[in-house]
Amino acid sequence: MNILALECSAGPVSAAVSVDDIIVSNAFSNINVTHSETLLPMVENVLKSAGLTLDDIDAFAVSNGPGSFTGVRIGIAAVKGMAAADNSPCVPISTLYAMAKRFEGINATICPVMDARRNQVYNALFRVDNGEVKRLTEDRAISALELTKELKNIEGSVYICGDGIKVLKDLISDMKNVLVAPIELRFQNATGVLLSAIDMIAKGETVSPQELLPSYLRLSQAERELKEKLKKD
Amino acid sequence: MNILALECSAGPVSAAVSVDDIIVSNAFSNINVTHSETLLPMVENVLKSAGLTLDDIDAFAVSNGPGSFTGVRIGIAAVKGMAAADNSPCVPISTLYAMAKRFEGINATICPVMDARRNQVYNALFRVDNGEVKRLTEDRAISALELTKELKNIEGSVYICGDGIKVLKDLISDMKNVLVAPIELRFQNATGVLLSAIDMIAKGETVSPQELLPSYLRLSQAERELKEKLKKD
Repeated sequence: MNILALECSAGPVSAAVSVDDIIVSNAFSNINVTHSETLLPMVENVLKSAGLTLDDIDAFAVSNGPGSFTGVRIGIAAVKGMAAADNSPCVPISTLYAMAKRFEGINATICPVMDARRNQVYNALFRVDNGEVKRLTEDRAISALELTKELKNIEGSVYICGDGIKVLKDLISDMKNVLVAPIELRFQNATGVLLSAIDMIAKGETVSPQELLPSYLRLSQAERELKEKLKKD
Repeated sequence: MNILALECSAGPVSAAVSVDDIIVSNAFSNINVTHSETLLPMVENVLKSAGLTLDDIDAFAVSNGPGSFTGVRIGIAAVKGMAAADNSPCVPISTLYAMAKRFEGINATICPVMDARRNQVYNALFRVDNGEVKRLTEDRAISALELTKELKNIEGSVYICGDGIKVLKDLISDMKNVLVAPIELRFQNATGVLLSAIDMIAKGETVSPQELLPSYLRLSQAERELKEKLKKD
C-alpha cells in the first residue's frame, strides 16, 4: 500500500509518501511563494525520491482544516485531481490532529494552536500515552484567554505547537508545565498527516474524491463580511 | 546567512536549507538506492524549494560520523566538492549529536544508538534541559550490555533513537523510564545537522573544505581484516 499525503493549511507546504506503513520520502518548503506554484513540483520530487510514480499511489491524504482558506482549498483540490483518475480512496485529516500525531511516543498533553486572528486560536487538546493519541476536545476556535484557563487545570507536561504560540506566549509564560514544542515538531507537516492516514486506512475510514471536503470551523472573512452587510441592510 | 546541511550516515539520505537560522526547506528519502544517486538531485530540489541556488549558500554542514563508512564518505565528498569553489566554511557534526539536537525542547536524557554490529552500538548520552543539549559522554562504540547498565543509573525519562534500538530492545524491555523516540525523531535527519550547525557557526566553529574529515570511531571492516592478517603473518 502506497500513500501520498499533502499539508498546506498554513504558510509552509509539505508532502510525504509511505510504502507499507513506512515513510520513505518527504519534503518541506517554507518560502513566500504561493502553494499552487510549489505543491506539484514537490509532489513530483517526493514520488521520485520514493522510487514511485503517481500511478503507484493507492490512497491520498490531506489536511482538510482548520487553516488558511486558500491553503486548505489548494491541498484538497490537488488531491481530488490526482485521486479522480482511478477514483482512489482519500483520507481527510484534521490539521490539529495531524499536528498532535507527530508527538506519538511522548507521554504528554498536546495543544496545537493555529492563529485564527482576533485573539483566537484554532485548537483541540490531545493526550498521548503509550504511543496512542487520544482526542480530549473537538476542533474549535477558542479565545486565547479561555484556552489558557483550560491549560491551568491540566496535570503534567503540555506541549504547545503551531503558529498560534505567539498568541498564547505572554499568557502562559509563568506556567511551568506548558512547554513550547521542539522546533522539529512545532509546525504542520505532511508526515503527521501521513501517520494519521495510515491508521485511518487500516480502519477502512476513507472517502471518495467527491466526498473529500474542507472543514473550516469558521466562515471565511468574505463570508463574514457578507453576513454583516446583509444584517445591516 | 544561508546554510545547506546533508545527512547520509546510514540508509536514508536527507538535506536541509536554512536562511537566517530558519529551516526553509528539507527533504528525506529512504529507499534502496545508493546515496551517490539520490543525494545530488535532492540537493538540487531543496535549493529550488528554498528559492536559492548553490551560489547563494554561505556555509555547508554534514554529519561526519559515526556511521556507514561509504555513507559518511559520500556526504563529506559532496560537501567538499560544493564548498571548494568559494572555499566556503564547513561544519562537521557528530551524527550522534545531530540526532540528540532534534529533541531540543524536550526535557530528558537522549540516547542515540546506531547498530555497530557484533552486539555493539555507536552511542553518546546527552541531557536536554531548558532548550539546551549538554553532552554527557564522548561518541563511542559500546556493548549493548554495558550501555544498558549505564541507562539503569539514569533518573527521569530516557529517549532512545536510531537503528541500534533493535540491538537494545530486549535488554531495556523492563525499564519503564526508557522510551523509544517518536517516529519523527527516531532516525538521523539533515534537520538535526542543520540545527547543530547554526549554533556552531554562531560560535565561529567552522573548518575549511580541506580540513573536513570523517570521524569513524572504529576501523573499517577492510582495515580490521588487514590488521588481523598482518598479525597472523
